[in-house]
Amino acid sequence: MKKISVILMGCGGVGRQLLQHIVSFRSLHAKMGVHLRVVGVSDSKTLVVPVDVLKEGLDDDLLSEVCSIKSAGSALTTLGALGKGEYRVFNGSESIRETEEIAQLLGKSTGLVVVDCSASSETVEILMKAVDLGCCVVLANKKPLTSTLEHYDKLVLDPRRIRHESTVGAGLPVIASMNRIISSGDPVHSIVGSLSGTLGYVMSELEDGRPLSQVVRAAKTLGYTEPDPRDDLSGMDVARKALILARLLGKRIVMDSIKIESLYPEEMRPGVMTVDDFLQNGIAKLDQNIEERVKRASSNGCVLRYVCMIEGSSVQVGIREVPKDSPLGRLRGSDNIVSFS
Amino acid sequence: MKKISVILMGCGGVGRQLLQHIVSFRSLHAKMGVHLRVVGVSDSKTLVVPVDVLKEGLDDDLLSEVCSIKSAGSALTTLGALGKGEYRVFNGSESIRETEEIAQLLGKSTGLVVVDCSASSETVEILMKAVDLGCCVVLANKKPLTSTLEHYDKLVLDPRRIRHESTVGAGLPVIASMNRIISSGDPVHSIVGSLSGTLGYVMSELEDGRPLSQVVRAAKTLGYTEPDPRDDLSGMDVARKALILARLLGKRIVMDSIKIESLYPEEMRPGVMTVDDFLQNGIAKLDQNIEERVKRASSNGCVLRYVCMIEGSSVQVGIREVPKDSPLGRLRGSDNIVSFS
Repeated sequence: MKKISVILMGCGGVGRQLLQHIVSFRSLHAKMGVHLRVVGVSDSKTLVVPVDVLKEGLDDDLLSEVCSIKSAGSALTTLGALGKGEYRVFNGSESIRETEEIAQLLGKSTGLVVVDCSASSETVEILMKAVDLGCCVVLANKKPLTSTLEHYDKLVLDPRRIRHESTVGAGLPVIASMNRIISSGDPVHSIVGSLSGTLGYVMSELEDGRPLSQVVRAAKTLGYTEPDPRDDLSGMDVARKALILARLLGKRIVMDSIKIESLYPEEMRPGVMTVDDFLQNGIAKLDQNIEERVKRASSNGCVLRYVCMIEGSSVQVGIREVPKDSPLGRLRGSDNIVSFS
Repeated sequence: MKKISVILMGCGGVGRQLLQHIVSFRSLHAKMGVHLRVVGVSDSKTLVVPVDVLKEGLDDDLLSEVCSIKSAGSALTTLGALGKGEYRVFNGSESIRETEEIAQLLGKSTGLVVVDCSASSETVEILMKAVDLGCCVVLANKKPLTSTLEHYDKLVLDPRRIRHESTVGAGLPVIASMNRIISSGDPVHSIVGSLSGTLGYVMSELEDGRPLSQVVRAAKTLGYTEPDPRDDLSGMDVARKALILARLLGKRIVMDSIKIESLYPEEMRPGVMTVDDFLQNGIAKLDQNIEERVKRASSNGCVLRYVCMIEGSSVQVGIREVPKDSPLGRLRGSDNIVSFS
């Protein structure tokens, strides 16, 4: 049985799903001849590790307990000394130092996979050290890949030591497919896609004549948006995905060079306006303009889609008119689509 | 530089594309540290091999010549002694014996990849021997995978030694994605898809009110169909793809247990009716019935699609009414779509 040691940063929805998956599929893994040993779980403040990372992993019962605590909205530190079995807890800067120590201990001996399921821009320093120490890196977090080119280059230096399928394309295998296309030698001239389930939903609802404010409020109620819907409407998330795809194509591009269209104006940005104020008063002011754009598109046989476009050294994300009868125009709801040509 | 020895069966459109790709991307392969050594190319009657398969591959100029001969519609045997450089030619049963000899020589020494780009049901015996001799197998040909379960089991015994991405889904990475889903432990309850570019085109044209006969004739002129369009209209090709997907899911199913709807009746089958007779007289007799089905579907808010459906132990391929506003219903032209749930 091959033991694969894993340390997880981030216990939000994605991180918890991963832990539950690991615990639930022990027998499948055994059939494949592998055992996933979780040697650390951390949220933004706290790290939980087994007593001896060289010899053992965290107990499955404890991992389930971690999931319960976090999905109840509590911090990992509340696990304290109350969890089942033996383990050690580190807080604050100590948790970072301990993570690095584990990477040092295991990276070049048993091997270690550092999994980043956080949404933080602060994990990148740990990841840099992990790479230096011979660890593999698995990312659901887009921020390390959209940081500086220096960070990016180090992360992808050894293609066998990094995976980040879930950063782009939701359930679609976009990254693996692109890697296969590139390594086959087929040239990719341009990429066009609809990469945000939330904005996809918003755009196809607008098409049916509903006002933007109503669509966004409904989307929030349905749980389709981030807690602050402006995190989706800003286009930043799509821009990050576009940057990841562009860099995969070998383009030397940084976030600042991406043209991003936000669906709300500067004066409604977080910090200036609260979420509630935005939803109750701000967004309705945007209804008329977008309604006019929808109508104009319709009179051209088109619909509006929030798309990413990569061609040459240009990367843009924003609203575009696309023919109603094109794959992008026919896309409905929160489905993603990507077209390579 | 790692040398990978390859022997190719089948020099039709797919096989030639592969040879041209190998020859054109030598420098990319070198960058990846591999060299593809073509130690044999065969069509249904003739095999061309280098003088010493242990030491050399066929010359790139010769491979290009093979492509020219075959795309001009000639048999490989016409290469005779006229090709550039040194090589040996085997015909008939000798070509099969020589292929097996190469597998014997290289399978467990340098390694050998046996690539089947034919559309023949007769390659399966060679493939069985190749697997026994430790070769890897790469298939564009669906027939070996849709042969008996005994053949299938032997082909997939070692998952690392078989690839057949191009058998299903056209350019969509269906096989790799399915393998990833399955090995992650996610359950797949059902698969529904539109897996024939030709029938996809036919169905979406019918939707626009054109008669079947006219659509099929146009499709043939555009080169969308097989030389005998009934090879597409019979549904057999879709059934093979469905069987491959079902077997990937672990289902113990054979071709005979698949319910296949043909778009033409028994009395118009090849052997009873010539291609020309079918296109000029036969197919027009089918127009009215299909037109009525299109209209009936439309009155239900649906369109007709030729789909494969896999659920439980049932595998069916045929025309189904699907909601106009579903991913399948919105599919147009020759695009493929597959949905796992």
